[in-house]
Amino acid sequence: MSEGHAAPGAPSSPRTVFFLSDYGTQDEFVGVVHAVLAAGAPGVTVIDLAHQIAVFDIRAGAFMLARAVPYLGPGVVLAVVDPGVGSGRRGVGLEVGPGGPGPRFFVGPDNGLLVDAAELAGAAPIARAIELATPPDRPDAGTPSVTFDGRDVFAPAAAALARGVPLGALGHSIDAASLQRLPPPLVEHAKLGNGRRTLRADVVWVDRFGNLELAATSAVAREAHVPGPGPGALDLTVGNGHACALRRVETFADLARGELGLLVDASGHLAVVAGQASAAEALAVKAGERVTLTW
Amino acid sequence: MSEGHAAPGAPSSPRTVFFLSDYGTQDEFVGVVHAVLAAGAPGVTVIDLAHQIAVFDIRAGAFMLARAVPYLGPGVVLAVVDPGVGSGRRGVGLEVGPGGPGPRFFVGPDNGLLVDAAELAGAAPIARAIELATPPDRPDAGTPSVTFDGRDVFAPAAAALARGVPLGALGHSIDAASLQRLPPPLVEHAKLGNGRRTLRADVVWVDRFGNLELAATSAVAREAHVPGPGPGALDLTVGNGHACALRRVETFADLARGELGLLVDASGHLAVVAGQASAAEALAVKAGERVTLTW
Amino acid sequence: MSEGHAAPGAPSSPRTVFFLSDYGTQDEFVGVVHAVLAAGAPGVTVIDLAHQIAVFDIRAGAFMLARAVPYLGPGVVLAVVDPGVGSGRRGVGLEVGPGGPGPRFFVGPDNGLLVDAAELAGAAPIARAIELATPPDRPDAGTPSVTFDGRDVFAPAAAALARGVPLGALGHSIDAASLQRLPPPLVEHAKLGNGRRTLRADVVWVDRFGNLELAATSAVAREAHVPGPGPGALDLTVGNGHACALRRVETFADLARGELGLLVDASGHLAVVAGQASAAEALAVKAGERVTLTW
Repeated sequence: MSEGHAAPGAPSSPRTVFFLSDYGTQDEFVGVVHAVLAAGAPGVTVIDLAHQIAVFDIRAGAFMLARAVPYLGPGVVLAVVDPGVGSGRRGVGLEVGPGGPGPRFFVGPDNGLLVDAAELAGAAPIARAIELATPPDRPDAGTPSVTFDGRDVFAPAAAALARGVPLGALGHSIDAASLQRLPPPLVEHAKLGNGRRTLRADVVWVDRFGNLELAATSAVAREAHVPGPGPGALDLTVGNGHACALRRVETFADLARGELGLLVDASGHLAVVAGQASAAEALAVKAGERVTLTW
Repeated sequence: MSEGHAAPGAPSSPRTVFFLSDYGTQDEFVGVVHAVLAAGAPGVTVIDLAHQIAVFDIRAGAFMLARAVPYLGPGVVLAVVDPGVGSGRRGVGLEVGPGGPGPRFFVGPDNGLLVDAAELAGAAPIARAIELATPPDRPDAGTPSVTFDGRDVFAPAAAALARGVPLGALGHSIDAASLQRLPPPLVEHAKLGNGRRTLRADVVWVDRFGNLELAATSAVAREAHVPGPGPGALDLTVGNGHACALRRVETFADLARGELGLLVDASGHLAVVAGQASAAEALAVKAGERVTLTW
Repeated sequence: MSEGHAAPGAPSSPRTVFFLSDYGTQDEFVGVVHAVLAAGAPGVTVIDLAHQIAVFDIRAGAFMLARAVPYLGPGVVLAVVDPGVGSGRRGVGLEVGPGGPGPRFFVGPDNGLLVDAAELAGAAPIARAIELATPPDRPDAGTPSVTFDGRDVFAPAAAALARGVPLGALGHSIDAASLQRLPPPLVEHAKLGNGRRTLRADVVWVDRFGNLELAATSAVAREAHVPGPGPGALDLTVGNGHACALRRVETFADLARGELGLLVDASGHLAVVAGQASAAEALAVKAGERVTLTW
């Protein structure tokens, strides 16, 4: 990257890159991107958020970024889930307003992966967006390529930001309102004719432990009058028609082994869980399915 | 973490955190903990020991820590395999006696995961133990949570220790004798009536290569008069009744492809192995099973 | 490592170790090697290239190193895929000629894993090769072992090089011409009697996305008159006799979902790919198989 002036010692340079992708860990993709970052921003700290997102699952990556953002310090988020690599889709760099505690820059494809997390990081609309210029072919690599933008476009841009190059030096400004967005996940609640209440929501994440995170935040749960922890149960219906009772609890340890429950998880969302067991397995539910709670 | 005074430049501050968990690599759990460590101890080096321990397998994590400890330099061990998160189980910080070459601090749940490794690191009883105070809710995260102590309790404590905060500032002292311990794995040996000798032991680890590490150390092997490398074979019986002969060898390369053998492995334990093949597959044995050697 | 003099602040010391192995991520092997590197070269940056190479697949590791090398900056490559550990096979350190932009040192077993990548890094024959001396047993570890040279021999050597110890201090010189080499993968092309042309090549890599990289570089493709991107199709025959048509394209996005194509991939090789799908799955082809293109 010859664009812009490096400001290596500048006190405001972010020195950390947070890296998320669907590159997996069986190939050398992630390692090569680390090498490009280290070459472009010597001394940078690279923190891998996750690389085993299902291939091309933009939505899973976007949710993951949004969950992680509140815990990231200052730095640059480099995120690549990019089925459209080589197509007309733009590569973008986003800057959030100054003064927040979290990442200030987001780099990746313009396909909906970055926007929600960037807005969350700035607690505000995105301050500035650019379309990344394609970097000139690097002489040491030899092979101009249009299939690995993570290595060839996004990592060099993230490294430049990490060493203090201003965002504007990496491409031309675009309207943040033109950025691609994903349709939001479904979450709706209602009071039924029989006096009962109901909440329908997409399962946005199934984690390693088999917990089913719903699109409903704890704020939505309050608005929908979902009961708090205590005696009594809710009814859960999943897409395949399976129905069962859930106990509303505070934490995993309130559940007997294998017992199903509902709690507010570590991301502040309602989650269907099981005591020391996988709720996903017990209910045969996957991310992207829809569930209904009634009480 | 507002507890205690940071001593960032103090020459005695450990600057490395060794991190082990059952968080897996498909989700962002590990990455978020790295971010919390980097925020709490800028410049810290974080070395991942492993995160794919079977969910909730405290025993596997404890064995792994004990195997790794002799090779770790100074620093803080952060270990989280925590089926009891949110229950009454304590979060603890342990300090081993000064002067050893390895990690001085261990942070994690009080469920048996840490104790053996900490004693090994100090080559002595644990010098000091505290119950970690729950950190005040961090204003930047928003969601007080009781389900992700790795992120919310243990990582902040490990970061504080890494930047030089004394252990005593992170909670109140407890009696090290009160720490939870796991029952030790079985290893026993005997001389039989017919003049043969026998050794029974739990398989404590099956590694990627399919090697079966036994609970018996090389010291136990000497005590039990297990033959050293050389001609002649031992009989192996596994839980499912399968019996076969094992050649006692020095190293993998002494075995023909697929041939079964017994050697002292890289952790100083007896291990049942196969030449360029998986002994676990050949014998259909898993970690936790018991095997018997006779010679 | 007591061999040689450390030169920690020397401006020419490589400060980065690039680490590749077949150790997998389920055990603590990789983490322990990181710890040994950090202890032996405080402040070193360790970049993991990949550790999930199939067990003992030297060839896959060698191809991976060769693909990665153009993107690595200065440093030491530590690579361990080592079915012959404990046998007579040598442990080696290689130095490439000075002045190149990439890694200057390669450390690992002498089994063909390193040579191609080292020659590529130096764009020249290897400048110097040594057989690594076995390090004296380290007093802190206790267990002399002949089964984990990555931890006990190669990592200490890589750390020594990273902190500035000259290669010659780590063992005795050997003739680079004596280094083990792998047989090169097959790639051959011909003009047929009927005026058509054909190219036969080994599949050298199947990545996470199911792309099939062929042994044929873009230079070979030009030499063989493989058509460039544009209308018209090539015929592909795979080992199991399956035949189909491939469209020659520039990039993935030129293909309809599921459509098969041929492109020059990010490593500069011909690759058989599918639009947002796995060519490996569609064609039931694995790394190591041979395919034939005809046009």
